[in-house]
Amino acid sequence: MKRIFALIAFLWLCVMACATDFTKYVDPFIGADNGGYTFPGATMPYGMVKLGPDCNKLTENSGWQKDTPVVGFSHTHLNGSGGGCKYGNILFMATTGDLDLSDYASPYSDAHAEPGLFDIMLSRYGIRARLSATRHAGFHEYTFPETGEANVLVDLGKFLASIETQEFVGSEVTVLSDTEIQGYSRIRGGWNYSEAFTVYFYAKFDTPCESFGTFKSGKKYPGVASQADNNTKCGAWFTFNTKGHKTVRVKVGISYMGCNKARENAGEIRSWDLEDTRSAAVSEWNDILSQVALEGGNETVKKIFYSSMYRIFMQPSDYAGENPKWISDDPYYGDYHAIWDTFRATHPFINLFRPRRGAEMVQSLVNIARHDKFLPDARSSHWTGRTQGGSNADMLIADAYVKGLEGIDYEAALQAMIKSATVYPGDDERQYGRGGLPDYNSIGYVSTSFERGCSRTFEYSADDYAIATLARGLGHEDIASEYTVKSRSWENLWNPEIESFGFKGFCWPRNRDGSWLDDPAFTVFSSGSFPHQFYETFSWELSFYVPHDMKSLIEKMGGKEMFTKRLDTYFNTPFPVKTDELLFYTKLVGMCQISNEPCFLAPSLYAYVNEPYKTAGIVRRILKDMYWDGGDGVPGNDDSGSMGAWYAFHTLGFYPNAGQDVYLISSPVFPKATLTFEDGKKLVIIAKNASDKNIYVKSCKLNGAPLNRCWLHHKEIVAGGTLEFEMTSKPTSWAADGQLPPSASDFD
Amino acid sequence: MKRIFALIAFLWLCVMACATDFTKYVDPFIGADNGGYTFPGATMPYGMVKLGPDCNKLTENSGWQKDTPVVGFSHTHLNGSGGGCKYGNILFMATTGDLDLSDYASPYSDAHAEPGLFDIMLSRYGIRARLSATRHAGFHEYTFPETGEANVLVDLGKFLASIETQEFVGSEVTVLSDTEIQGYSRIRGGWNYSEAFTVYFYAKFDTPCESFGTFKSGKKYPGVASQADNNTKCGAWFTFNTKGHKTVRVKVGISYMGCNKARENAGEIRSWDLEDTRSAAVSEWNDILSQVALEGGNETVKKIFYSSMYRIFMQPSDYAGENPKWISDDPYYGDYHAIWDTFRATHPFINLFRPRRGAEMVQSLVNIARHDKFLPDARSSHWTGRTQGGSNADMLIADAYVKGLEGIDYEAALQAMIKSATVYPGDDERQYGRGGLPDYNSIGYVSTSFERGCSRTFEYSADDYAIATLARGLGHEDIASEYTVKSRSWENLWNPEIESFGFKGFCWPRNRDGSWLDDPAFTVFSSGSFPHQFYETFSWELSFYVPHDMKSLIEKMGGKEMFTKRLDTYFNTPFPVKTDELLFYTKLVGMCQISNEPCFLAPSLYAYVNEPYKTAGIVRRILKDMYWDGGDGVPGNDDSGSMGAWYAFHTLGFYPNAGQDVYLISSPVFPKATLTFEDGKKLVIIAKNASDKNIYVKSCKLNGAPLNRCWLHHKEIVAGGTLEFEMTSKPTSWAADGQLPPSASDFD
Repeated sequence: MKRIFALIAFLWLCVMACATDFTKYVDPFIGADNGGYTFPGATMPYGMVKLGPDCNKLTENSGWQKDTPVVGFSHTHLNGSGGGCKYGNILFMATTGDLDLSDYASPYSDAHAEPGLFDIMLSRYGIRARLSATRHAGFHEYTFPETGEANVLVDLGKFLASIETQEFVGSEVTVLSDTEIQGYSRIRGGWNYSEAFTVYFYAKFDTPCESFGTFKSGKKYPGVASQADNNTKCGAWFTFNTKGHKTVRVKVGISYMGCNKARENAGEIRSWDLEDTRSAAVSEWNDILSQVALEGGNETVKKIFYSSMYRIFMQPSDYAGENPKWISDDPYYGDYHAIWDTFRATHPFINLFRPRRGAEMVQSLVNIARHDKFLPDARSSHWTGRTQGGSNADMLIADAYVKGLEGIDYEAALQAMIKSATVYPGDDERQYGRGGLPDYNSIGYVSTSFERGCSRTFEYSADDYAIATLARGLGHEDIASEYTVKSRSWENLWNPEIESFGFKGFCWPRNRDGSWLDDPAFTVFSSGSFPHQFYETFSWELSFYVPHDMKSLIEKMGGKEMFTKRLDTYFNTPFPVKTDELLFYTKLVGMCQISNEPCFLAPSLYAYVNEPYKTAGIVRRILKDMYWDGGDGVPGNDDSGSMGAWYAFHTLGFYPNAGQDVYLISSPVFPKATLTFEDGKKLVIIAKNASDKNIYVKSCKLNGAPLNRCWLHHKEIVAGGTLEFEMTSKPTSWAADGQLPPSASDFD
Repeated sequence: MKRIFALIAFLWLCVMACATDFTKYVDPFIGADNGGYTFPGATMPYGMVKLGPDCNKLTENSGWQKDTPVVGFSHTHLNGSGGGCKYGNILFMATTGDLDLSDYASPYSDAHAEPGLFDIMLSRYGIRARLSATRHAGFHEYTFPETGEANVLVDLGKFLASIETQEFVGSEVTVLSDTEIQGYSRIRGGWNYSEAFTVYFYAKFDTPCESFGTFKSGKKYPGVASQADNNTKCGAWFTFNTKGHKTVRVKVGISYMGCNKARENAGEIRSWDLEDTRSAAVSEWNDILSQVALEGGNETVKKIFYSSMYRIFMQPSDYAGENPKWISDDPYYGDYHAIWDTFRATHPFINLFRPRRGAEMVQSLVNIARHDKFLPDARSSHWTGRTQGGSNADMLIADAYVKGLEGIDYEAALQAMIKSATVYPGDDERQYGRGGLPDYNSIGYVSTSFERGCSRTFEYSADDYAIATLARGLGHEDIASEYTVKSRSWENLWNPEIESFGFKGFCWPRNRDGSWLDDPAFTVFSSGSFPHQFYETFSWELSFYVPHDMKSLIEKMGGKEMFTKRLDTYFNTPFPVKTDELLFYTKLVGMCQISNEPCFLAPSLYAYVNEPYKTAGIVRRILKDMYWDGGDGVPGNDDSGSMGAWYAFHTLGFYPNAGQDVYLISSPVFPKATLTFEDGKKLVIIAKNASDKNIYVKSCKLNGAPLNRCWLHHKEIVAGGTLEFEMTSKPTSWAADGQLPPSASDFD
C-alpha cells in the first residue's frame, strides 16, 4: 500500500512537471463560434500579426466560421470583437489546378488550433495548411498533393466586411523574383469607421516558383510582374511543381509603414522550420500562462481558465516601430477594441500580472492623446473610434495609478483626461472624447437631446471619479474636489418615481428642460445599441452601475436591505420581456445579461453590504452555466478577452473594481493557485475543501492573520504570501461585520 | 509713305501672329520674392506635380528663395501660400564628387522660368539643371561637367518646414536597377495641421549608373539597394561617369497611391527630350491664356496680366486617380489653399473661363463632404483644414450655381452647406465646418468666447446668404427664407456706439451675455491672425464686408453720403497705427490692406451708391502702385492666385461679387480685350481712349445698346458680343442714376 502511494506521488510529480507547459490547456476554438468571435489563429502575446483563416462570405468578426469553406488565411484580426468587422488583410491561399479567381475557397477538415499554430486540411485541394506567427510576420506551410499546378496566391482585394462595413480603397502588387512578392492593401471603415489604412506585405518563399502571374479587377495577367493601384483590387500567384517536393513554405512580413519594413519584419522568422516559430510562440505564451499555476480541481475548468487567460493577452497589439502617423519614443499599442469592454477586467488582469506591459499600454494612450486629439475609447488600424458609453481610458489610467504602475506620464495623462471631460468633440460623437458634453457640463446630465444619454451620464460620473482619483494622487486637490463633485452627476438621472417589481428609483432618460422622458413604450427593460439611451444595457441593470460610490447608491435604493433584495431580484427574476426583442440579451442570468459588459461588476456588489456569500453563489452559477469548453462556450462576444478576464478573475476568487484599489472576493474555484508576479513574488491562494459544492467562504487568512473583510487591496495581493480560504457548502456569515470597501461619499 | 504704312501693318500682323503664344508674357518669378511666394517651377494647369527648386533652409512656402543656395528640386508645392509651409516632397539634386549628405546645396546663377520650364545653373558643381513637368510626373535634365563622379540623389528626408511646421514621419527607398529608384516620404503637419500623408515616387534614368548607394539617418550605404522605414530619413544616389556623355535625364512619377502607380505616372513622359514635355505644357497653358487676347496697351502690363492669369490656373490641383482615401466616380481636386482666399476672385475667374473645370472643382467639394465629414475651407495632402473666417465653400457653390455651371449635385451640395451651418465641428475649430456655431445659432453672433468671432459672424452671414441663394434656386423656399433671415446676423455685431474719424457704428466684439467688449487696448484698427477676433482684417475694413446686403449696410452707416465718405476715408487716410505693430498690413492703400483678401471687394463698393468713377480711381491706383513685374510685384501672399485674380479681373474692367450674379464694373485697362469662352463665344471689350490717364468710363454700350448701370450679369458677359466703353480722364456721372446691384433686403 505504501508503494502504491509512493507511485502515485511520483506520477503526480511527473504530471506537475509536464503541467508546466500550460499552453496545452489552451483551446483557441473555445468561444470561436456563435458570436463569441474568439480568434483561433496563430499569434504571439500582443502580436501585431494575427494569422488565421477567413471563411465563407468573410463576414465573421474573427474571420473563422465553423463548417464553411475557407477562403484563405489573412494576417490581421481582432479577438472577440462585435459589431462590424475589422481587418482580414493580406489573404494568402493555396490551390491546385487552374486558378479560379471567382471561387477558390475550400471546405475544410481536421481543423486544429493551439498557441502558435493553426493547422487545417483544405479538402477541395487535398492541401494541408499549417500557420504560425511572430509579432510582425506570418509563417505558412502548405503541403500539396503531387501536382504540376500547385498555387499559392495572395489576394489584396479580400478583407472582412459585414455591417458597418470595411470598404476597399486600393491595392498594389509586385512580383520581385521567383521567390518574392510584395504589395499592399488599403481599406477604410469597419467598426471604428476609420479613415483609410494601408497594410503592406513582403512574402519570401522557400521554393522558386515555376511560373507566376498577377491579377487585377478579376482579370488574370500570367507572367506580368506588377499591378498599379487605380483604386483596384489586385493580387498575384506563384505556381509550383510539387511532384517530389510537396511542401511550400512562405514567410510573410506585415507592416503599416512600407514594403521594405515588411521585408525587415519577415526576417523575424529565422528558419524554414515552422516548429521553430511555433515553439518560440509557445514559449512566450507559457511565460505568461505559468504565472498562474492551478492545482487540483477539474481539468476541463483548467482548459477554460487558461484559454480565457490566453485571450486576455492577445490585445491590445504592440505596434512599436509600426506607427505610420507620427514619431514618438513612447510605447505605441493599437487594437483597443474597445476600452469600454476591457477596462473592467482585461486591463486590470494585465496590470496585475504584467504591469510593465500595462504601463506601456497606458503610456501609449498618452502618446495617442498627444498626437491625435483625445484619449481613445477604441482604436484599430491607427484610428481612434468608436466611443461607446464613457471616456473609459480614464478608468484604465486610474487603475494603473492606484496599482502603482511606473513609467507613465501621469500629469500628461491627467491633462488628457481633463480634455475629454471639458472639450466637446463635436460632429461625430462616436469618434472622440465625450459626446453630450454640452449637456453634461451645464445641466449635469446628458439629456435625450443626445444619443446614449443614460449610459453616458452614469459612465461619465464614474470616469469623473477616475479623474478625481488621479488628481488627488498627484496632489491637485482642486481638480480632485471638482471631479469628485462631478462624479455625483448620475444622481441627476435618478428618477425616484420609476417603479418596477416593487423597487422605486431607477436611472431614467431626461429631457434638457429637466422633465423626464414620458414615453409609454420606454421601460426599465428597454435597450439597444447606438443610439439608444441605454447602450447595451437597460435601466434595471445600469441603475447598479455606480462603482465609485456604492454607499450613495445603496442609500438611493432605500438602504442595505432594499439594495440586497433588488440585487437578488435582478439575478433571480426571468427577464420579463420576450428575448427576441432583446438584441443583446443572448445570455441572461435572471435579468443579468452576462453577454455584455455593463453587468460585469454587479455579481460582486453584495460585498458593499457585506453579504459575500451571495456573490459567491451567483458568480459560481455564472461560471458553471455560462462558460464551457466548446465553440459556443463564451457567453457573448469575447470583446478582446473581456469575457475571458471575467472568468479568469472569478476563478481565482476575486474581481477588480476597476480604477480603484479594490478587489472584491467572490469564490476561489481551485484548491490551490500559485500566482507569480512580474517581480518574482508569489501569492499562494489556498481554498481548503474547494469544490463545486463548497463555494462559500467560511474563513479567510492573509499570511496567517484572519481577514474579516470581503475585499483586498492591490498590495495585499502583489506583496505575495498566502491567502488561505476555508470553503464550505452553506452560506456563511464570514465578513458580515467587516470593513466595507471604500465609496466616494465616505470622504464627504 | 504708303509703303511704310504697309510695312508697319505687315509687321503688326506678324507681331499679332507671334502674340498668339501668350505664355511668352508669363514670368513665373513675378511675386516669387518678399512673401509673394508665387511658385516659379514647372507645372501644368491644375497639375498635381509642381516641380521646382527648394532653397536655403527650406523655410519658404514656394520652396524658392532668391540669392540663396538651391538644396534640390522637389515635386510638390503650393503657389503663393502663406503661414506654415506645406509639401516640398521627393527632392532630387545633382552634385559632383564625393557626396556630402550634410550639405550638398549649391549657389545658383542664370535662373530662368517660363511655363513648363525651370532652368538654373548650380554653380558649386557647374551643373545645369532643366526641369519640366506633366500632370503627375517631373522631368529632370542635368548637364554635368566632364567627371567620373556625377551624382543624382533623391533625399526623402527633405521637405519644407517653417512655422506650423511639417514633421517627418518616415521614408523608404529601393534601387530597383541601374536606372530605377523608387520609394516614399511620409510627412504630417504644415499649415493645415494634416495627419500623415505619403508621397510615393518612381524614377527612371536614361543613363545606367556606374555605382549607387542608399543612405539612412545621415549614414551612407554604398551598394546597398534598399532601406526600410523605421521612422527614419533615407534616400539614394546614382553615380555616373559623364566623361563624353554629359547629360543625365530622369523621369520621376509621383503618386499618393503607391510606387507602382508612380511608375505608371512616370509613363506620362513619353520621350527623353525635355522639349517634348515642355512644349506640351506650353500648349496647355496657351489654350487657357489665349482665352483673353489683350491688344494695345503696355507690354509690361500684359506681362503682369498673363503672369497673374497663369497663377489662377495652377490650383486647385486635379487629383483624379490619386485618391488614397476612398473610391468615388466624382471629380477629386486638392490644394484648396484656401477657399477663404480663392472664393472671391480665383474661382469666379475659373468659372468664367473654364466652367467645366469649375464645376468639377465644386463637385469635388461635394465628394469630399460625402466622405470626410464637412465641406472643406482648405485642403492639401488629402486633409481638410484649416478654416479661416467662414465656411466659404458655400460661396464657391453659390457662385457656380448662379453662373449656371452644370454637372454638380446641387441638392447634395445644399445638404453639405446646411451641415456646416448646423453641426458643430467641436474640438479643433480650425479643421472643419463652422467653429463658434453654438453661439451663432443661439444668440445670433459668435461671441468673444470663441476665436475669430467678428470675422466669423460677418462671413457666416454672407455664407448663409449663399445657402439661401442655392436653396431658392432649387425651390426650397423654407430653407431660403430661414437662411435669408440668418444672413442678417452681422447686424448683431454692429455696435452703433463705436466711433472713428467721425463715423459711428462699427463691427465690434461682443460677449456672450450681450455686452460689448470693453477693452481700451482694442480699437477699430486691432488685427491679427488666429485667434484674433478680426482675422487678417480689422474693424474699419470688415465693417464694409456685407457683400450680400449692401443696401442694409449703407443704411446702417447713415445713408449714401456717409457711406461714400466712409469709403473715401478708408482709401485715403494713412493707417493711423504704427505699421510695425501690424502683422498683415504689409501693403496699404490708405487703410485698405490690399495684401489680404478681406478688402478685395471694397474698391468696387462705390457701385452700390452709383459712383463708379471712385471705384475706377482707387482700382487703377492699386493696379499701378501695388503690382509690377518684379519678384516683389505682388502685394501679398499670392494665395493660390488670389492676388493674380484680383489683378486680372480689374484689368479687364470688372470684378465679381462672388456667389452672386453680379460683376461690378471698374475700369478696363486695355483698349481691346477679346474674351473667348469655353463654348467658343467671344466677348470683345473695347475701351476707347483707354490709357493710364483715361481711366473713367464716360459711356458704355452692350451690343450697341447703352448700358446705364455700373454692373453686369453673368449672361451679359458669356453670351458674347461687344462691350464698348468710352474712357476719359475726368470723373464722370456715367450710371449715376442707374439701377443698383441687388441686395438681400431688396426682397424683404
